[in-house]
Amino acid sequence: MSRPLTLFTGQWADLPFEEVCRLAADWGYDGVEIACSGDHFDVARAVTDSGYAEAKLAQLKRYGLTVYAISNHLVGQAICDDPIDFRHRSILPSRVWADGEPEGVRRRAALEMADTARAAAMLGVDTVVGFTGSKIWKYVAMFPPVSLDVIDDGYADFAERWHPILDVFDNVGVRFAHEVHPSEIAYDYWTTKRALAAVDHRPAFGLNWDPSHFVWQDLDPVAFILDFADRIYHVDCKDTKKRFDGRNGRLGSHLPWAHPRRGWDFVSTGHGDVPWEQCFRALNAIGYSGPISVEWEDAGMDRRQGAQEAVGFVRSLLFDPPSAAFDAAFARNDDA
Amino acid sequence: MSRPLTLFTGQWADLPFEEVCRLAADWGYDGVEIACSGDHFDVARAVTDSGYAEAKLAQLKRYGLTVYAISNHLVGQAICDDPIDFRHRSILPSRVWADGEPEGVRRRAALEMADTARAAAMLGVDTVVGFTGSKIWKYVAMFPPVSLDVIDDGYADFAERWHPILDVFDNVGVRFAHEVHPSEIAYDYWTTKRALAAVDHRPAFGLNWDPSHFVWQDLDPVAFILDFADRIYHVDCKDTKKRFDGRNGRLGSHLPWAHPRRGWDFVSTGHGDVPWEQCFRALNAIGYSGPISVEWEDAGMDRRQGAQEAVGFVRSLLFDPPSAAFDAAFARNDDA
Amino acid sequence: MSRPLTLFTGQWADLPFEEVCRLAADWGYDGVEIACSGDHFDVARAVTDSGYAEAKLAQLKRYGLTVYAISNHLVGQAICDDPIDFRHRSILPSRVWADGEPEGVRRRAALEMADTARAAAMLGVDTVVGFTGSKIWKYVAMFPPVSLDVIDDGYADFAERWHPILDVFDNVGVRFAHEVHPSEIAYDYWTTKRALAAVDHRPAFGLNWDPSHFVWQDLDPVAFILDFADRIYHVDCKDTKKRFDGRNGRLGSHLPWAHPRRGWDFVSTGHGDVPWEQCFRALNAIGYSGPISVEWEDAGMDRRQGAQEAVGFVRSLLFDPPSAAFDAAFARNDDA
Amino acid sequence: MSRPLTLFTGQWADLPFEEVCRLAADWGYDGVEIACSGDHFDVARAVTDSGYAEAKLAQLKRYGLTVYAISNHLVGQAICDDPIDFRHRSILPSRVWADGEPEGVRRRAALEMADTARAAAMLGVDTVVGFTGSKIWKYVAMFPPVSLDVIDDGYADFAERWHPILDVFDNVGVRFAHEVHPSEIAYDYWTTKRALAAVDHRPAFGLNWDPSHFVWQDLDPVAFILDFADRIYHVDCKDTKKRFDGRNGRLGSHLPWAHPRRGWDFVSTGHGDVPWEQCFRALNAIGYSGPISVEWEDAGMDRRQGAQEAVGFVRSLLFDPPSAAFDAAFARNDDA
Amino acid sequence: MSRPLTLFTGQWADLPFEEVCRLAADWGYDGVEIACSGDHFDVARAVTDSGYAEAKLAQLKRYGLTVYAISNHLVGQAICDDPIDFRHRSILPSRVWADGEPEGVRRRAALEMADTARAAAMLGVDTVVGFTGSKIWKYVAMFPPVSLDVIDDGYADFAERWHPILDVFDNVGVRFAHEVHPSEIAYDYWTTKRALAAVDHRPAFGLNWDPSHFVWQDLDPVAFILDFADRIYHVDCKDTKKRFDGRNGRLGSHLPWAHPRRGWDFVSTGHGDVPWEQCFRALNAIGYSGPISVEWEDAGMDRRQGAQEAVGFVRSLLFDPPSAAFDAAFARNDDA
Amino acid sequence: MSRPLTLFTGQWADLPFEEVCRLAADWGYDGVEIACSGDHFDVARAVTDSGYAEAKLAQLKRYGLTVYAISNHLVGQAICDDPIDFRHRSILPSRVWADGEPEGVRRRAALEMADTARAAAMLGVDTVVGFTGSKIWKYVAMFPPVSLDVIDDGYADFAERWHPILDVFDNVGVRFAHEVHPSEIAYDYWTTKRALAAVDHRPAFGLNWDPSHFVWQDLDPVAFILDFADRIYHVDCKDTKKRFDGRNGRLGSHLPWAHPRRGWDFVSTGHGDVPWEQCFRALNAIGYSGPISVEWEDAGMDRRQGAQEAVGFVRSLLFDPPSAAFDAAFARNDDA
Repeated sequence: MSRPLTLFTGQWADLPFEEVCRLAADWGYDGVEIACSGDHFDVARAVTDSGYAEAKLAQLKRYGLTVYAISNHLVGQAICDDPIDFRHRSILPSRVWADGEPEGVRRRAALEMADTARAAAMLGVDTVVGFTGSKIWKYVAMFPPVSLDVIDDGYADFAERWHPILDVFDNVGVRFAHEVHPSEIAYDYWTTKRALAAVDHRPAFGLNWDPSHFVWQDLDPVAFILDFADRIYHVDCKDTKKRFDGRNGRLGSHLPWAHPRRGWDFVSTGHGDVPWEQCFRALNAIGYSGPISVEWEDAGMDRRQGAQEAVGFVRSLLFDPPSAAFDAAFARNDDA
Repeated sequence: MSRPLTLFTGQWADLPFEEVCRLAADWGYDGVEIACSGDHFDVARAVTDSGYAEAKLAQLKRYGLTVYAISNHLVGQAICDDPIDFRHRSILPSRVWADGEPEGVRRRAALEMADTARAAAMLGVDTVVGFTGSKIWKYVAMFPPVSLDVIDDGYADFAERWHPILDVFDNVGVRFAHEVHPSEIAYDYWTTKRALAAVDHRPAFGLNWDPSHFVWQDLDPVAFILDFADRIYHVDCKDTKKRFDGRNGRLGSHLPWAHPRRGWDFVSTGHGDVPWEQCFRALNAIGYSGPISVEWEDAGMDRRQGAQEAVGFVRSLLFDPPSAAFDAAFARNDDA
Repeated sequence: MSRPLTLFTGQWADLPFEEVCRLAADWGYDGVEIACSGDHFDVARAVTDSGYAEAKLAQLKRYGLTVYAISNHLVGQAICDDPIDFRHRSILPSRVWADGEPEGVRRRAALEMADTARAAAMLGVDTVVGFTGSKIWKYVAMFPPVSLDVIDDGYADFAERWHPILDVFDNVGVRFAHEVHPSEIAYDYWTTKRALAAVDHRPAFGLNWDPSHFVWQDLDPVAFILDFADRIYHVDCKDTKKRFDGRNGRLGSHLPWAHPRRGWDFVSTGHGDVPWEQCFRALNAIGYSGPISVEWEDAGMDRRQGAQEAVGFVRSLLFDPPSAAFDAAFARNDDA
Repeated sequence: MSRPLTLFTGQWADLPFEEVCRLAADWGYDGVEIACSGDHFDVARAVTDSGYAEAKLAQLKRYGLTVYAISNHLVGQAICDDPIDFRHRSILPSRVWADGEPEGVRRRAALEMADTARAAAMLGVDTVVGFTGSKIWKYVAMFPPVSLDVIDDGYADFAERWHPILDVFDNVGVRFAHEVHPSEIAYDYWTTKRALAAVDHRPAFGLNWDPSHFVWQDLDPVAFILDFADRIYHVDCKDTKKRFDGRNGRLGSHLPWAHPRRGWDFVSTGHGDVPWEQCFRALNAIGYSGPISVEWEDAGMDRRQGAQEAVGFVRSLLFDPPSAAFDAAFARNDDA
Repeated sequence: MSRPLTLFTGQWADLPFEEVCRLAADWGYDGVEIACSGDHFDVARAVTDSGYAEAKLAQLKRYGLTVYAISNHLVGQAICDDPIDFRHRSILPSRVWADGEPEGVRRRAALEMADTARAAAMLGVDTVVGFTGSKIWKYVAMFPPVSLDVIDDGYADFAERWHPILDVFDNVGVRFAHEVHPSEIAYDYWTTKRALAAVDHRPAFGLNWDPSHFVWQDLDPVAFILDFADRIYHVDCKDTKKRFDGRNGRLGSHLPWAHPRRGWDFVSTGHGDVPWEQCFRALNAIGYSGPISVEWEDAGMDRRQGAQEAVGFVRSLLFDPPSAAFDAAFARNDDA
Repeated sequence: MSRPLTLFTGQWADLPFEEVCRLAADWGYDGVEIACSGDHFDVARAVTDSGYAEAKLAQLKRYGLTVYAISNHLVGQAICDDPIDFRHRSILPSRVWADGEPEGVRRRAALEMADTARAAAMLGVDTVVGFTGSKIWKYVAMFPPVSLDVIDDGYADFAERWHPILDVFDNVGVRFAHEVHPSEIAYDYWTTKRALAAVDHRPAFGLNWDPSHFVWQDLDPVAFILDFADRIYHVDCKDTKKRFDGRNGRLGSHLPWAHPRRGWDFVSTGHGDVPWEQCFRALNAIGYSGPISVEWEDAGMDRRQGAQEAVGFVRSLLFDPPSAAFDAAFARNDDA
């Protein structure tokens, strides 16, 4: 079960794609999960220029890298979000933001996500990783009170906006892998249950298993894999370290990354509280055979040092399962 | 140290104030923390009708009750909030909501809070309990990314809006006790530190210690009392029970109160995870001499049964400290 | 939701039923869960003598007691067990044991359990509590190795023996409530899952929720209620205290009850580690409306003192849920 | 097993013995553990005035109280201590302190302890509770380094000074019950092992089980009872509450009792972290049949309120064990 | 203290001994703990053919390997077991199983174990590792109830069957090291205490310390070493990982190895919850100087990869203790 | 942030300084924290012989080593201690001990510490690490009772003795870094607070952060760094492993190092319970830029093996922080 190990390029979008490929290959990655950002991957060009995807593949080939998934978190964020504001402006392609009128932004984002599926198909990739956005995330504190029909409406809005997108995914044979994450329609176990139900468990909509936000919510990443076994479409290895001491908070206290008074922080894969080996064994158990992608983020560590170190850490846990069951060896074998 | 035990009337605003007084007295409460809601307390009338406060006091006296603080959480919520929306409309007096234009609502809420101080003074009460609202709460997930100057601006906005209100508080000799709570400018330990700094630690702005939201954030309620000793202006006894099992979430999963898949829920005082005795001992240690107010909320228990039961529970822990130190008894006293 | 509180008579089978009724009524129980042991309830007589059940009901009525369920753990144990040995001889009625030939014992036990359903119906009771026995419990340590088809066969044997019994239950409109317990086909969470599947989730086969053996297996009794919500047919309140100190064992070390070196022991309801309040709230959440039955067992406490004390403990947690939701009280109500 | 419940009078030595008796009887205690302090009990008079003990017993009888043990902690402390200084002067009878020359003080203290045994015998009491002092306690931090022979000498010094005292105990049929405690030769589990070995496990030297100092040292009070079963000669119920939060220390930080920054503090029996029920069950298991004595100390609570409340708490856990074993009730009894 | 590191060959019995030797040597093991299975070691031939042992030793020598112990778990299992059934047939040599009549099997197994001692002696090895079997393991759930004399009889049966075997061990100067394990007479701390007492603590009967089954029983492997210091005759390094989440069970749920819903599973040495370094330090402390044997088993990992990796892991913790005590370096040494 | 990694020479004072330098350089250390012991560093010579320091520096240079701090724990210990006894005699230079008259010893120790500052300056080093001693440590158990003015006097004595020493430090531009440690004036969090206050927070007096004694006191080493950020003058990496099992004690039980019944013990850096990575991140956060010094002590491991291994362990955690903040990479960059 020699799983491919990939590097997610989202946190490296400030570097030219060529440079990221060179680094990833040098460090020992087998491939990349390409972010639709910077010059890494341009969805608009990909769907209009038939040579774009081919050129990307050729570029990867030069470095001995493979691509198994592309990701478009930032565009996905805008599909259901309310409000749409300066934060989206900072992260969206200008063609999606345009005049910034909220409903227009949402619709253009939806179209761009559909195009992302088409672009993935042209790249020969069957998985798009990303976010959904959410109309109701902002009510998470539930005060001032919101009635349950407001919540119901949030899930309905998500389904309504995503069904047409997922139709395109189905048409081109690509699956969407939502990353369970604050700010999204599904950010924990029970909201994932409900989000999957909201889109009628259609196979086009699955999950990108990224345990980093499970850690501070005290969600069990292993149980998540087992319980949503048929919806784990992609795996991102991002790690989180907790430091709750009675003063530091679960909610981050509006403090920036790497601030020592945060209750939790992203750290280099293997430096945090994710039980990686148990998780990889669970992935084996459900028969997941896709890439293991390192989403590297640690505001307290040099990223080049960290992304390289992560290769060794993750590979050490990606050992092969045995070919035969064990008890066989105990059987009587002294007779001929 | 016979502390007064009061009942917060906010969760009983659907009942006539007379009925709430009758119940509170029957159950053994010494007084009430009156919510500025329903017919319990009308700030607008209090500041315009000099007899209103006197009538309230007389009404209380008939039931042998005293008032030590009034609370105006709902109006406070609107002072800094952004957006102002349907949720505020549901909880604000119509004169504050008016046409619902957001900045107008905020300004009228600020004026109403200043009036609440004046009304408190007329009632002979030196503490107003409440919320502040927040312009930046909605960015708590920090994704899509917000820059630190956006956060800075949130605290500045809070200070700018509250300084004039607090001036009125100072003028009438009343203090504001902010309840640390999600959706507010200060919702945990470090945001409380920063909020106090934002208003230059002026004495008019202090805290209502209510540990119910500390529980699920894993904040230490005892440390909070000791570290903010000079700002504990009021005490609300609301309790919370945790049930994190790897699937239930810290954030509530957008589920309603009493839903069995919530990771935490409010429960009748004494049924939850607040270490009440340790907290009361800490309050003794810092010399807090104000009321102990039961904010009763439990969506899984009949409220009349619960509010009555809470009296016995809290009183059993409000024992007197000793008059003299201990080791004295060890001293040699066989000589005469 | 005034739930009936009953006393399980199994641990009192050495006393005449009349005496047990007198005690239960004196202590404040609302009814009894009658064990098919001693003179408490004779299944054979009940199904042949039409006046027997009526006489029992009249006897109960004299003490103001009601019966909601009868239990026949000991006969149930013999239905699937292998081996059948001296231990069964000690606990079975002589007509079931007869000559002790194992398969004959199993078949007579099966017939007796079917009769128990008939007897329950005659008593006007819709639930029989009990055990199933198991052909494979003895392989729990999995050493010497057993192949998976041996395990499969154990569940198949259970299904084969119980389907005809459950047909009789269906015919007379009574349900069987299996108590999840070591020595039985279902003794923990996953074996319960599989046992329910083995009988095709037929409604005649459900569960008696008794958390005492969950405690030392570290199973979550609340999750069990929620996950098997539609199969919780009866509730037994038996409590267990853990004392694991690195030397005491999970498996009991073949030591007798109340031995201080046991890692766990049964204790009077409320003296152990079961989170009773959380469990009762979960029972409310799933809409369980049946009896709460105290199965009292504590080898370190006088049983009369304990069974009486348990009434007060359990009743203090059987508080009423509220009639209306909470947030309503927050709504604006100053307009008229 | 109706155990007598007694009040230790040491913390009440500032009150006349008559007053302490009156209070103890009023609160419901069965007897007193009399401290050799104040006018409570004068060892010197007792051994010289044959009527003194009789008068005490008569005095107790008037209040319906019994005495099962006397205690002489303060004199015991001086027997092995080094240095002897102003602290001892404050707690010793003047006849023992005299000129304060250290070795003289130690020798007079040893003689006074021997007299305490004689006085106990005259009072009809077979147990003297107390401290031993220690020559090596002061080296507990082990820095600056001390060689092992210094430690060995400390235990040898203890044995040498106590053997002659214990000879007197043997002669008058009284046992010494050492309270395991910081500042003494035995202050934890392994020092207790070694101290017992140092006096050759002679039966005259046993233990007063007081778990209050076990709590902050994380010693298991139940294991202590079971492992030293044959040396538990007396039981003192003193309770301790821990509050370690990463800043408060195990060692008390030289802070006074009831200071909120202490890591632990004595609290009213039942308000702390001692698992009392488990401990009382362990005492049942080893067959301890002596008194349960409340050593009440809580610098944050009025002592009269607390000592009264403790009676109810402790009695609620002193339930009777059963007369017969349990499984008997399961036996087949349908045959006649 | 350069301890030899050996590989237990039991889980490799499907491979020719020659191949196992080659692998073990390649991976860096110093020797092997030879299982009496397959062609690894044939007890019957060894005791009858004087050249057999010599040939084995020569074979080992060719690979630079040493043997310190041989193991015969499977034959040991049959000595006390009841029932003897198809499971034993699968694991016993045919000459021991023969016609399968239970008592005959037990007696032949006992004789074979005595021969194993003789064979060990011929191999120049002083330790035989193995199991005892148990007549009473099957009653571990204690329901249906078994009386204490049944338990007593189980230990007596064990002693009766093993004393003659141990006499042979004594005669040939070899010791038996029982592996504490479910299905055996001693499976936890207190059953080990009792089993040792049952054979009068005779030195011929000691223990093979294997912590893998301690992990899920929450037994302290370090305390086990220290408390049974004089009976630790051999060390097997098998590791276990716990995953208890409120649903997975302590008892394994009759699920196969590597099933993700098991509460615990064997894992490659160093991947589990055994505190290996603390254990090795404890072994140093008691002066254990025998081999450290890797019993490698992990149904989720390729065994060749794992057994090789384990060498590095274990050796990294087998560091040398210091030659001199520490504080010496602090001593004043500035004088000449 | 390439921090220098140094070896503290205190535990190697039995070896010639030349040999220690050779070893440290071989193992990969960047420098040494030189202990004022043995021939490592002679304060008396350094202040009188202007060539002594230069010779030391030249010696270091030959091995490519740098010195950032010198330490004089043993002399510091005598400055406030009471009593002064045989323990001090063993660790003090003979010129400081002289006739051993306690007050004379203290005064000579104070002068020697002032000279240590002068010697440091001559060596070009700005930090002296050490102990303070304490007049009141011996009262840590607070029994027999000591009044608060005795405690107050202890801090006053410390301030009085140290102010003149610190004046010399100020004069020569060197800082004292006190190691928080049992036996010293500051041994935990709150005593550190008070000790710093006692010397008026003068900058000459700071802290040597050594977490080894925090571990068993359950003090949070990260919080310590953050809260005393402006007083962390030096860092010593000494590690401690806890083993509390209900019998082992917090206080060490007067047992020697490496005794298996101790509740805690010093272990090779990286083998204990200090969360090193979190600590180094906190040091980054406060801007600490000084040396990371390994104070190696482990009575169960060969020191040469351990000190070498520690270099790799510590360096693996001394990774560089990033040069730029993270979220930048998320920014929209598709526009040109």
